[in-house]
Amino acid sequence: MNLSINLHLKDTDLPLYRQIYAEIRQAIVSGRVTAGMRLPATRRLAAQLGVARVTVAQAYAQLEAEGLVVSRVGAGTFVAEMLRQVIAGEETAVFKPTLSDWGQRVASLPVARNRVGDNRGLIDFGFGRSFPHTFPYDIWRRLLARYLSTDDAMLSRYGSVAGFYPLRQALATYLSQWRGVVCEPEQVVIVSGAQQALDLLARLLLPSGSEVVVETPGYTDAYALFQVHGAHLTALPVDDEGILVDRLPAASEAKLLFVTPSNQFPRGGTLPLARRLALLQWARRHDALIVEDDYDGELRYDSQPLGALQGLDRDGRVVYLGTFSKVLFPALRLGYVVLPEVLVRPFLQAKSLLDRGAPTLMQAAVADFMAEGHFERHLRQLRQTYGARREVLENALRDQMGDRVSWTAVAAGLHIMLRLQPHEDEAAIMRRAAEAGVVVYPGSVYYVERPSPPAVLLGFSGLNEADIEEGVRRLAAILT
Amino acid sequence: MNLSINLHLKDTDLPLYRQIYAEIRQAIVSGRVTAGMRLPATRRLAAQLGVARVTVAQAYAQLEAEGLVVSRVGAGTFVAEMLRQVIAGEETAVFKPTLSDWGQRVASLPVARNRVGDNRGLIDFGFGRSFPHTFPYDIWRRLLARYLSTDDAMLSRYGSVAGFYPLRQALATYLSQWRGVVCEPEQVVIVSGAQQALDLLARLLLPSGSEVVVETPGYTDAYALFQVHGAHLTALPVDDEGILVDRLPAASEAKLLFVTPSNQFPRGGTLPLARRLALLQWARRHDALIVEDDYDGELRYDSQPLGALQGLDRDGRVVYLGTFSKVLFPALRLGYVVLPEVLVRPFLQAKSLLDRGAPTLMQAAVADFMAEGHFERHLRQLRQTYGARREVLENALRDQMGDRVSWTAVAAGLHIMLRLQPHEDEAAIMRRAAEAGVVVYPGSVYYVERPSPPAVLLGFSGLNEADIEEGVRRLAAILT
Repeated sequence: MNLSINLHLKDTDLPLYRQIYAEIRQAIVSGRVTAGMRLPATRRLAAQLGVARVTVAQAYAQLEAEGLVVSRVGAGTFVAEMLRQVIAGEETAVFKPTLSDWGQRVASLPVARNRVGDNRGLIDFGFGRSFPHTFPYDIWRRLLARYLSTDDAMLSRYGSVAGFYPLRQALATYLSQWRGVVCEPEQVVIVSGAQQALDLLARLLLPSGSEVVVETPGYTDAYALFQVHGAHLTALPVDDEGILVDRLPAASEAKLLFVTPSNQFPRGGTLPLARRLALLQWARRHDALIVEDDYDGELRYDSQPLGALQGLDRDGRVVYLGTFSKVLFPALRLGYVVLPEVLVRPFLQAKSLLDRGAPTLMQAAVADFMAEGHFERHLRQLRQTYGARREVLENALRDQMGDRVSWTAVAAGLHIMLRLQPHEDEAAIMRRAAEAGVVVYPGSVYYVERPSPPAVLLGFSGLNEADIEEGVRRLAAILT
Repeated sequence: MNLSINLHLKDTDLPLYRQIYAEIRQAIVSGRVTAGMRLPATRRLAAQLGVARVTVAQAYAQLEAEGLVVSRVGAGTFVAEMLRQVIAGEETAVFKPTLSDWGQRVASLPVARNRVGDNRGLIDFGFGRSFPHTFPYDIWRRLLARYLSTDDAMLSRYGSVAGFYPLRQALATYLSQWRGVVCEPEQVVIVSGAQQALDLLARLLLPSGSEVVVETPGYTDAYALFQVHGAHLTALPVDDEGILVDRLPAASEAKLLFVTPSNQFPRGGTLPLARRLALLQWARRHDALIVEDDYDGELRYDSQPLGALQGLDRDGRVVYLGTFSKVLFPALRLGYVVLPEVLVRPFLQAKSLLDRGAPTLMQAAVADFMAEGHFERHLRQLRQTYGARREVLENALRDQMGDRVSWTAVAAGLHIMLRLQPHEDEAAIMRRAAEAGVVVYPGSVYYVERPSPPAVLLGFSGLNEADIEEGVRRLAAILT
C-alpha cells in the first residue's frame, strides 16, 4: 500500500527538506499511516511539491537516520515495520498521574492569583510592583554591558550556588550599615526569592507535622508553603505594633516562627523593642528558629530604617530574609537570606541539589549598583517618591473615608491595608470598585482565621498622585 | 555608671551619625555594655569625636527610636533597662539545628564540586561550559537594551510562573521543527534548570521509597536529587547506543525512568528507534513516566538532530527537559520542560509555591534571540566551531592513545568520556595530569555501581585546537 502524502509547505525560515521530514514524521508517529506503507518515490514527491528531488531525498535520509523508514534497494522506502506497535498495536494508555501526598496538597491549593492582569485604563492599586519611571535603567544598561563582552569568561561558566561573591560582600556591608544585621559575607546566600529560602528551610528543619508560629493577617504565600510541607500553623493576631507576643503559647512544640517585625505584612506596624526581646526569649526557651522577613524594611518614610531583629540575636537563631523585588524591580527575581553560621553548609548543600545559583549577569550588575553608590541614591529617591504618594493616599483616605475604614499608619512599604467595617462585603466592594474603574485587592486572604474580617489592599507605588486621589474618591462613593 | 565609648570613625560613604549609631548599637546588642549605663552627653561625645553635636544627637535619636536607649530629661541618655535580659540575663543558648530526614540525607552528600576553579595557565578540559568567543554578545546587548527602558512596565511587575509567554511560543515552534517534540506553548514551562524540574516532578509524583530507573553511568546530579527525596535507584547499564532496554525489569514498581536518549550522558551514544519503542512500551505496561533529558541534543555534528523520544509518545507519558546552558551560556540559568497536558496544572501550582518565575529580562532577550533567527544561526556556528574541535580531539586521541583508552564516537555534545583500562588509577592520572598542566575530570563519579570503572571526562568546547592537541599529548605520556 502506498502512503499518499498531502503536504502543505509553509513560507517559513525552516528549510524545505526539514518541513517535508517533519510532516512525514508527524504522520508516522501520530499513527495516521501504517507500518510497512511505501513512501512516494523521491522523483514523484518532488514533482508534486515543486521542489528539487535532492530536497526530498534529504528528508528521507533524515527519516531513515532515525529508523522511521527503511529503504530497500530497487523497491523504495517504507515506513519501518517496528513502528507497528506504536501505530496499530496496543491502544493508547493515556498517562494519569498519581500525585504524592505533597502533590495532592499542592493540587488542592487555589490556583495562583494572576499578578499580570491587563488593567490598562483602570486605576490599579496593584501592590508588589515597582514604578518603572523611578528606576535608573540607563545606569543599569551600562552596568550590564560591562559583562556582556566576548572577552569576559564569567558568563560562560556556572556561577556559585551561594551567589556571586561581590554581591554577597556588598550585601553584608549594606545590611550591617543600614539594617543592623550582624553577618559575614559567607552567611549571605543569594536566592530566587523568599519562597525558595523558606522551602529549603522547611525541608531542612521541619519534619512533617511540625508546628509553625505565624502572624495573622500575614504573608499567606509563606504559610501555604509550610502547610503543603505538612506543617500546622499556630497563628497569633497582630495589632498596630505587630505580633502580640503575649499570645505566644507557653507550652509549644514549634520549631519555627515566621515574623515581619520591620513592617508587619500586610497590616503595617513596627515591632517595638520589648516585643522583639520577648520573641527572642521565647525562641530561646523553646529552642526555635525565627525567620525574619524584612521584605520592605528599607522603604521607611519618617525615620531611618530600624535595625533588624537579627542584630539583637546572640544565639544564632534568626534567619533574615530580604529581597530586591521592592526596591529594584520584581522581575529581577533576586532575594537573599542571611543564615546563622551553622545553617550555611546544609542550606548550600540543599540549594546545590535544586539549582546552580541565580543568573550571574544580574547579580554582577546589582553588586556594582550597590558598590558604586547607586543603590543608596536610588533608595533615597524611592523614599521621596513613594513617601509623597503615601502622604497623598493617607490624606485622601482621611478626607474621603472618615471612620468608615481604619488602618495602621503607613510608616514603611508600598501598600496600605484598609480594614472595613464588619458589615461590609469585601468581594462586593472589589466588584463595584472595578465597575467604577478602580482595582483594589482582597485583604481577607491574608487572615488565617475563617471567617476573615473584610479588608482591601491598596498599593500606592504604581500610581501617580492624581490617580491616587481620584481612585480614593471613587472608592469612597462605594463604601456604605 | 557611664558608658565609655571608643569609636573609630571610618572614611566611608556612610554618614557620620550612622556610624556613631551603628557602633553604639553594636556595643549594646553584643553585650559589651550594661543595661542602665549612661551614654556620654552629646556635647562631650561630639567634642571627643570632632563632629557636630547635632550629628551625635541624630545617632542617639535613632537609638531611642529603636528603644535601645531611653533619655530622661535633665539626667541624660541611658541604655534601656529592658535590655538586661539580652545583655546580662540568660546565658546564650546557641542554636543547633536538628535536621529533618531530608536534611540529614542532604547533609550526607559530598560537598558540591567547585565548578569555577582557577585553572588559568593550565590546559583545562572543563565541560559544561561555553566558549565566550562564540557568543554574539553584541546582539545580546542590543536585545536586552530594548527592555531596559523606563517606558516599559514589564520589568516592574512579577512575571508569569510558567515563563514569559513569547519564549514559550518560540520554544514550542523550535522544538517541533527541530527536535520533533509535539507540544503546545502551554505545555512549555521555563525553569531555572533541569534540577528544578526534577525536584518538582519528584515531589509531585514520587512517594518516599519509590523506585526510579536510571542509566549508569549517568547524570548523577539528578540521581542525588532522587535519592535525597527517598527514592531507590534501579540502574541499567548502557552501551554505545545508550540504555540497554533488555535489562528493564519485567516486574517493577518504578513510576519514573530517567533517560538521555539523544546523547547518553556522560558516555555518549544515540538510542536507536527499536530501543526507544521498547522504552515506551515498558513505560506503558508499568504505567510509568519517562523523563527525557535532552541536555545537548541540538549540538549534533554529523547529521541533523534526531527527533525526541517525546515525539513518539502517544500516551502523554514523556516529560522533555531542555536547557540553554550548553547552547547560549551556563550563567543564564534558563531551562525548559515540556509537560504532558495532565501535569501542567499541578506542576505550575507547585512551582508558584516555590518561585515566581525566571527573570523576565533574560527570558525576553532569549525569546527575541530565537524569534529573530539568531538562535539557529548561533547553533549552526556552534556546530561548526565545536565540530572542528571534536575532530581535532578524536584524531589526537586516536594518534596518541591508541587502544589504551576507549570511547563512544562523539556524535553530539561538548565532551568525551575516556574509558581507561581496568588497571588504571583514575585519581592518580588526574593528579599526574594536573602536574603536567592538564586538567581532566573524574568519570567514576557518574557510575552508580561501586567500585566504578576508571574513566576521565574531557570537555572540548572551552579550548582551542592547539591546546586540545597539546593536552592530549601530555595526557598520553601519563597513561601506561
